[in-house]
Amino acid sequence: MEKIFSVPLKGGAMTDVYTSSLSEIAKELSSYPSALAVFDDNSLSSYGERPSVPFISIAPGEERKNWESVDQILSRAMGEGLARDSMFIGIGGGVVLDMTAFAASVYMRGARCILIPTTLLSAVDATLGGKTGIDYGGAKNAVGTFFPAEKVIISTAFLRTLPECEYRSGLGEVLKHALLSPDNDLMKFLLAKRDKVLSRDPEAVSEMIRLSLAVKISYITRDPEERKGIRSSLNLGHTFGHALESLYDYSISHGEGVAWGTVKALRAGEELGVTPSGLAADGIALFREYGFDEDRFSIPEDLLPEYLKAIGKDKKKKGGIVRFVLMEDLGKPVLTPLSDSDIEKAVMRKA
Amino acid sequence: MEKIFSVPLKGGAMTDVYTSSLSEIAKELSSYPSALAVFDDNSLSSYGERPSVPFISIAPGEERKNWESVDQILSRAMGEGLARDSMFIGIGGGVVLDMTAFAASVYMRGARCILIPTTLLSAVDATLGGKTGIDYGGAKNAVGTFFPAEKVIISTAFLRTLPECEYRSGLGEVLKHALLSPDNDLMKFLLAKRDKVLSRDPEAVSEMIRLSLAVKISYITRDPEERKGIRSSLNLGHTFGHALESLYDYSISHGEGVAWGTVKALRAGEELGVTPSGLAADGIALFREYGFDEDRFSIPEDLLPEYLKAIGKDKKKKGGIVRFVLMEDLGKPVLTPLSDSDIEKAVMRKA
Repeated sequence: MEKIFSVPLKGGAMTDVYTSSLSEIAKELSSYPSALAVFDDNSLSSYGERPSVPFISIAPGEERKNWESVDQILSRAMGEGLARDSMFIGIGGGVVLDMTAFAASVYMRGARCILIPTTLLSAVDATLGGKTGIDYGGAKNAVGTFFPAEKVIISTAFLRTLPECEYRSGLGEVLKHALLSPDNDLMKFLLAKRDKVLSRDPEAVSEMIRLSLAVKISYITRDPEERKGIRSSLNLGHTFGHALESLYDYSISHGEGVAWGTVKALRAGEELGVTPSGLAADGIALFREYGFDEDRFSIPEDLLPEYLKAIGKDKKKKGGIVRFVLMEDLGKPVLTPLSDSDIEKAVMRKA
Repeated sequence: MEKIFSVPLKGGAMTDVYTSSLSEIAKELSSYPSALAVFDDNSLSSYGERPSVPFISIAPGEERKNWESVDQILSRAMGEGLARDSMFIGIGGGVVLDMTAFAASVYMRGARCILIPTTLLSAVDATLGGKTGIDYGGAKNAVGTFFPAEKVIISTAFLRTLPECEYRSGLGEVLKHALLSPDNDLMKFLLAKRDKVLSRDPEAVSEMIRLSLAVKISYITRDPEERKGIRSSLNLGHTFGHALESLYDYSISHGEGVAWGTVKALRAGEELGVTPSGLAADGIALFREYGFDEDRFSIPEDLLPEYLKAIGKDKKKKGGIVRFVLMEDLGKPVLTPLSDSDIEKAVMRKA
């Protein structure tokens, strides 16, 4: 295992990020005398061998991201006699990682936790910064905690066999990070290495993850509990995107939603004079380069009220007002409330 | 409202403790534009008037301290459109306060929280220090978080109508605090004011709560997340006591359990040569003065294995070993593992 980041978080907590081979991950698992590994059926099959610690596997899918699944994890932990110093090990996509970390955070008021992402999306999105949770009352991640994992272990070996739509979902978040980066290293990298990234060249994928995490880290370390409006900027595209996902009953992937939402945020920013036209055009072009076409999803006129209602459920509300992340410049997000008509203009507009 | 303590907690969090009249509490409630108050049926009836904010009331009892009740709170919060900056207000005994604070801690990954204890036990035990939770898998508080309330508001008005067994339950924790105090102010106060305390003289009750909280505060501020073995000492009597409560299917009160457990911890300490005989005798005499007789509860010989198994579920396990709080001196607790035969000697012994 090679340590690529040490991320300082709230209250002296620290998450170490490693890259690793599958065999090193197996060795890591067996190093804990009291542990529970949580897989989904996909990650269990890509893990290959039988885990050396007690484990459970949860059926994959966002619709499993609920208390019943967390209850399964907690109940097994209890049955195995895990204590506060025992290790919860999440191995899978974002759903499994968020739920494993949530379970760890509430078990005996906080046990230990390691996260091993097996999808691109979870490698760049779900693992760092301690956001845990489940969907609740129709709202994504409406119930959860902040609970940073001790270690995040990334292996590109898991990404080789990832279904195309899963890989694309991760790319949506990576592209979003490119806009949030104050230097344009990630943007340049993505434009230069497009073909290698799309063919999943291991070296290119590794570098892309590293650059993408560096952007995320720069935001979360400045605002670990999302209280200052800095970390919230990582939600660029999420308010527009989550509501789209909800309207489509989560039949579209998170990354697709974020990609679409980011383009809409660029459009809304341009319309309001917040986002320079050049930046909006460059951003939208980058998404198009990677096959994210904003016209792929549209809001039927009669579903607009439902879409606006889904927007209202966003948990970044402050004083009852939903604030959107708009871009003033590359790496310079700003939180702004939007009127229903601003939202309508952005989402109903055709390219 | 009069502020009696400001308690600094982890990560710059702060809990302010106030004493207050009922009318000031009603005013406090109406000061929040977005809030949900959580009562139990008892606290709702002692509150008197109809609350000015949305509220729910949960049937009283430890057996309601589960996810279903937390789910009720979260679901109502969602229905009322509460956001991360909305206020959860728990008004009741420990069960309601622990669950309200748990719900607040996971709602949108952490909303705001105020706790208003209406029992002596919850005033001295459940409100300060941020322990939240529910019972799980047969173990008390096995699932929860650390999430300090912004404010704790104590009104002795609630205590006047408290059933005798409830009041006694609180006294069990207060007496335990007297042993944990390095100065002997609380011990002296309890011996001098016994009659006033038992007749619930408001001034005496107020002073007793203040002295008792001062002891608790001195432990939690030194170890806010129970990682250093200092805060764990507040669990004096709890390992013995919880297991007794569990054996009696929670038909005996928490304070009765703690009182019994504290006496057993004094006995075990004396037997092992950890606790000076004088301290053990003084402590046991104090409990007897207040009507806590260790012979009131006994472990039938054939239930001893079940009792020992309940002890093994204690969440203060470290490396698989349950550590008991024993007293080396007044205010000087020490964490020590006990063998099954040590435990047996203490719990089977008659006074």
